Amino acid sequence: MSHPLAALFSPRSIAFVGATERSVWTRAAFANLSTLGYDGKLFLVNRKGGEVLGHPAVSTIAAIGEPVDVALLMVPSEALLETLPELSAAGIRNAIVLSAGFAESGAAGRELQSRLTSLARDHGISLLGPNCLGFVNYTSKAPVWTVSLRPQRARDAKIAIVSQSGALAAQMSYFAQWQGIGLTYMVSTGNEAGVGVAQVIDYLVDDPATRSIALFLESVRDAPAFARACWRASQAGKPVVVLKIGSSEVTVRSAQAHTGSLVGNDRVFDAVCRRFGLVRVTSLEDLILAAEVLARWGRLPEGGLGLISLSGGLCEIAADRAADAGVSLPTLSLGTSARLAAALPNFGTPHNPLDVTGGALLDPSLLEKSLDAMTDESKFAAVVAVLDVASATSDDSKLLRQLIAGVAAAQARASRPTLLISHTVRPFSELSEEIVDTTGCDYLPCGVDYGIRAVARAIEWSRLARDVGSSASGNGALPWRELSIPQSGRMSTEHSSADDGRPRSEREVLEYLRRRGVPVVPAKVVNSADDAVRHARALGSSVALKIVSPDIPHKTEVGGVMLDVTGDDNVAAAYEQILAGARKAVPQARIEGVSVGPMREAGVELFVGTMRDPQWGPVITVGLGGVWVEALRDTSLRLLPISQTDALAMLDELRGKAVLNGFRGTPAVDRNALASVIVAIGDAALALGAPLVSLEINPLRASGERIEALDGWAEWASSG
Amino acid sequence: MSHPLAALFSPRSIAFVGATERSVWTRAAFANLSTLGYDGKLFLVNRKGGEVLGHPAVSTIAAIGEPVDVALLMVPSEALLETLPELSAAGIRNAIVLSAGFAESGAAGRELQSRLTSLARDHGISLLGPNCLGFVNYTSKAPVWTVSLRPQRARDAKIAIVSQSGALAAQMSYFAQWQGIGLTYMVSTGNEAGVGVAQVIDYLVDDPATRSIALFLESVRDAPAFARACWRASQAGKPVVVLKIGSSEVTVRSAQAHTGSLVGNDRVFDAVCRRFGLVRVTSLEDLILAAEVLARWGRLPEGGLGLISLSGGLCEIAADRAADAGVSLPTLSLGTSARLAAALPNFGTPHNPLDVTGGALLDPSLLEKSLDAMTDESKFAAVVAVLDVASATSDDSKLLRQLIAGVAAAQARASRPTLLISHTVRPFSELSEEIVDTTGCDYLPCGVDYGIRAVARAIEWSRLARDVGSSASGNGALPWRELSIPQSGRMSTEHSSADDGRPRSEREVLEYLRRRGVPVVPAKVVNSADDAVRHARALGSSVALKIVSPDIPHKTEVGGVMLDVTGDDNVAAAYEQILAGARKAVPQARIEGVSVGPMREAGVELFVGTMRDPQWGPVITVGLGGVWVEALRDTSLRLLPISQTDALAMLDELRGKAVLNGFRGTPAVDRNALASVIVAIGDAALALGAPLVSLEINPLRASGERIEALDGWAEWASSG
Repeated sequence: MSHPLAALFSPRSIAFVGATERSVWTRAAFANLSTLGYDGKLFLVNRKGGEVLGHPAVSTIAAIGEPVDVALLMVPSEALLETLPELSAAGIRNAIVLSAGFAESGAAGRELQSRLTSLARDHGISLLGPNCLGFVNYTSKAPVWTVSLRPQRARDAKIAIVSQSGALAAQMSYFAQWQGIGLTYMVSTGNEAGVGVAQVIDYLVDDPATRSIALFLESVRDAPAFARACWRASQAGKPVVVLKIGSSEVTVRSAQAHTGSLVGNDRVFDAVCRRFGLVRVTSLEDLILAAEVLARWGRLPEGGLGLISLSGGLCEIAADRAADAGVSLPTLSLGTSARLAAALPNFGTPHNPLDVTGGALLDPSLLEKSLDAMTDESKFAAVVAVLDVASATSDDSKLLRQLIAGVAAAQARASRPTLLISHTVRPFSELSEEIVDTTGCDYLPCGVDYGIRAVARAIEWSRLARDVGSSASGNGALPWRELSIPQSGRMSTEHSSADDGRPRSEREVLEYLRRRGVPVVPAKVVNSADDAVRHARALGSSVALKIVSPDIPHKTEVGGVMLDVTGDDNVAAAYEQILAGARKAVPQARIEGVSVGPMREAGVELFVGTMRDPQWGPVITVGLGGVWVEALRDTSLRLLPISQTDALAMLDELRGKAVLNGFRGTPAVDRNALASVIVAIGDAALALGAPLVSLEINPLRASGERIEALDGWAEWASSG
Repeated sequence: MSHPLAALFSPRSIAFVGATERSVWTRAAFANLSTLGYDGKLFLVNRKGGEVLGHPAVSTIAAIGEPVDVALLMVPSEALLETLPELSAAGIRNAIVLSAGFAESGAAGRELQSRLTSLARDHGISLLGPNCLGFVNYTSKAPVWTVSLRPQRARDAKIAIVSQSGALAAQMSYFAQWQGIGLTYMVSTGNEAGVGVAQVIDYLVDDPATRSIALFLESVRDAPAFARACWRASQAGKPVVVLKIGSSEVTVRSAQAHTGSLVGNDRVFDAVCRRFGLVRVTSLEDLILAAEVLARWGRLPEGGLGLISLSGGLCEIAADRAADAGVSLPTLSLGTSARLAAALPNFGTPHNPLDVTGGALLDPSLLEKSLDAMTDESKFAAVVAVLDVASATSDDSKLLRQLIAGVAAAQARASRPTLLISHTVRPFSELSEEIVDTTGCDYLPCGVDYGIRAVARAIEWSRLARDVGSSASGNGALPWRELSIPQSGRMSTEHSSADDGRPRSEREVLEYLRRRGVPVVPAKVVNSADDAVRHARALGSSVALKIVSPDIPHKTEVGGVMLDVTGDDNVAAAYEQILAGARKAVPQARIEGVSVGPMREAGVELFVGTMRDPQWGPVITVGLGGVWVEALRDTSLRLLPISQTDALAMLDELRGKAVLNGFRGTPAVDRNALASVIVAIGDAALALGAPLVSLEINPLRASGERIEALDGWAEWASSG
């Protein structure tokens, strides 16, 4: 059973439609076929027939006379609308459209692209592009790519590049080449009128040669399909590394000028990555290198990194980089330490990172023995050694070869992934190639700076893969909902209290939360001073009084809150004062009463809010209350639903998390109890369905094991 | 007037002492002379005389028969003690020592190195090393370097590498070579028994060919000399970029194992960089690239960065990287925007970063015109264009050359610094060299990731250079004190109240601060309940009472604080209660009385503390009080003294700085008033001299314009 896109991406016959010698695109696409050694069929279509680049051309698509796997359309954008029916009539089901001038270029272009999409769908044609450069299948030597390719070093290629920008795909392929990294595929998806990154990822999940995917994204155009494809990749153990632009304000502006597509909220995309097991990087170099390290290593066990070098200074730089990247360098266990001490005379106490010292230049076996010991250390998920394969000069090349042969031998024996990297990023020279081929050494000339970051991404992906896997089994169902995306990006909201059972006021929201298992402060809404006094007596403690009105979201500002009130007279007076104040401040407000609740001991206040992202659906945000969330925006965000593990991780992401440990007399917060409540709030919001725009609990008070919602607020889409 | 180290670093005669063909060091050092084209004199000294590497050797230093500028000593460490007097006798005043086995290898080695240092001093010999690889003077083609060098591309070399690690210096030189970056000097200082990085920097400040210095540091061994040299470099407009290891905990451990030298507190070193105008980087690549960009650009005017590329996606990546690096991308002024709109048809509104689009491939003049407009934009300090000089294939090389020639022409006309960089980091190939040489294009193949970071460092250095310059002129004196370093790294402290006029107790410290112009809360220390009541009446407000004792630093813990007390009876009762509580909790405490002060309105509490760093002397730390400083360690640190500008910058560094803007009814803090008080506290600490270990004001309360020290504490070295 082959993938629906197999004919497109593994073609045995290709047609160049609109081929002409004058076009740099035609010439490049044609030259690329021989550069890669394509041995399938080729048809050239030129309105005038005759010969193009020394090959006979037919004058119409119909004249090809047999079905073709894929047609590369190099015709003006207007002509495309006539070309697609001709393809269909000729039995050609896959087409690549180079032309620009579609959705990226304004309203008219968007209209034209929409017609292209409909036409392709109507004729059953899978369309790559428009505004793309095509693709290259390096594995089966089939390039349909319109700028010049260079042959890639014939070695074990493992990674696929998928990019919405063709130009950046090309640049990434150059970088991969300089690093000696082989590619299985390079696919440029352009405007994605038909086939998008989601479909390409889905295809590559099934491609046995592709061990990881390097993805460059400007925007996600089909969120549910994208989520499904990334989920499949994660389940298949195939890492997806993503560089998505749009993390800065300026970028958002620039992206709108450039692509005309919506650059989604960047923090939401971080949550998307976490949910669906993608790791995110910030540069083209990091993208290729993280994908390559993941392709070589696959899923790592839990543990930190072991590091070896011949230079103490380098060890220290690497350790600093690891700390920055969040990679732990575990201390050596006693056994490993003893083994290293025996292997390295005059060395003292071995450490991680391990400085083998220049002594290895006198006795090359020291490096090999050290690697053997380090790769047996159970605290390590992987081991990295630093030594430049290709810095040999004639004078020291023999020594260097001995060292590298030793590394290769240790790597072959090693029970955990190991990699040799260079000190700084450098070209994969002919000398590197020769030494690597001779010794079989697993090497990347990426330097310590990029190398440590790539390792950090590999560790991160492995952890995510475990998390994603465990949520799947835990719930007995897929841990992601089908994303339901509202019709338009903006929804108007309403606050009216239509009698539809939807919780709106504080009282209704807190009552709803209570029914959903969220602990709520035992406050009661009263409508007379007498009832206020009665409930205060029943609580038997100092009380807090608050106005209850769907029209007054910010109670404090209208004098609608009084705290720490004791004694019947004071309670009665507070009741009247709050009511009078609210009526004066917001005369039209519908007032449901005054809530009377117990004062609580010192505790931490949190903010928990859900929102509906127009692209990715409901998300949940957690922050510490007050200055933390309001002035510092110190929050953590996830797609809903979340698990207990997710909620604990969210708390751990807060910069101010130390206040949860207890501070100046406040008891430490029971994080498990708090996390359960956050999960329950998220589930409660989901249960209210798509018309819910936002559910906010502010504050959620936490003190020891007591977690209580003190106030709540819901906002609904007016259409629902 | 030549520099004292001129003969060492620009030798016209060199002696290799202990030269032997069996040694890789001798062979490499010898080969390097011809690799670089050294045309001075060379003498070989071998105990057996005869020939070494085809050259006649003398058997003793004395037999050289004439003074030599520098001797490279390749003799065993024990033999060195005999060799130095021989050098001196022969009139040789500069020596380089390769051997290891000195301070880096334990107590015996430290002792040996100390003898070496004394001997060199006694004989008037400038000593480079031990445990170093030597140096290379590329400008005068004089290498005294003991591993194989490769010839460097003959072009305008501008940067010098200075490194305590010889191996890393070599790796940096390789990276520079791959980037097409020329070096003026490479100096490895090793253990620095004689000449250290400070002296080398001082020498390079006077070297006209060296435009910037790339410095790798494990530790600073002579802080005052280092500070002086860096200050001279800053005053001379010569940037020093530094990679100093030790930013992570693990690194500190490893560095101790490696060098046996003290890795100073990393945050203090950040403050040192800021004070003396160094910019700090985190990788070998960043070190070379930032130094090169600074060497090309020098001091930039104020302003942000202009960015141009042919790819929208790349513009967006670059903008994200700039945001991360703290580089602003100013919006275009109307004039520039209009000029670009005229130059770029069908473009819409031009932005920064500027996407020239693939249209430049059809009309190469678009890129040149855009660069002309962007380099005239007054909001920019510099402009960076992204285009890979050496990605041309035969098919598109003509077009690429046109594009690059256009960039070069625009660069030549530009009124502000411009640089062309590649998309990703890549080799400076022969093709790059040819195109750069032909067109004169200013190019670095460093990629956007490293390139933007290098630009960020150039902007940072320019700002620091302005700051350092302005403090110098403002004070009418050098803005740095001579560093006075205590005899030992640790000092015992004392709390006794010897009658030496030193402020110790809260009362004494606050009184001292008041005299030094620091506003202090008008509290009075009383010794009877009656006096407490009298002072409370005089204040005419609710009061705070606090125990005053040099033996009770943490008052709250012994019930020694009562807040918001009103009424004569309550004040009297509070007085007695505090006294009784303190006497019970700390029976031996010397109690000076109870302080009675006014309660203040809501405000922000800060922590201000000075400390004495064993290496760099007095430093000042500022943080927001409470959870911020205690749980989050959210502080800013500077060397003392500080200016008003420094103090404002310190406040701006605090993560929680938003609370200073006013929050929930607290008035916004007057930052200028607060900064003045912080400066005054720093000056007050300095005025107490070296025996002061620490002066802490906690809290310093700030509310609007009212800034007041509420509590203070001083700690003194017991020896003083």
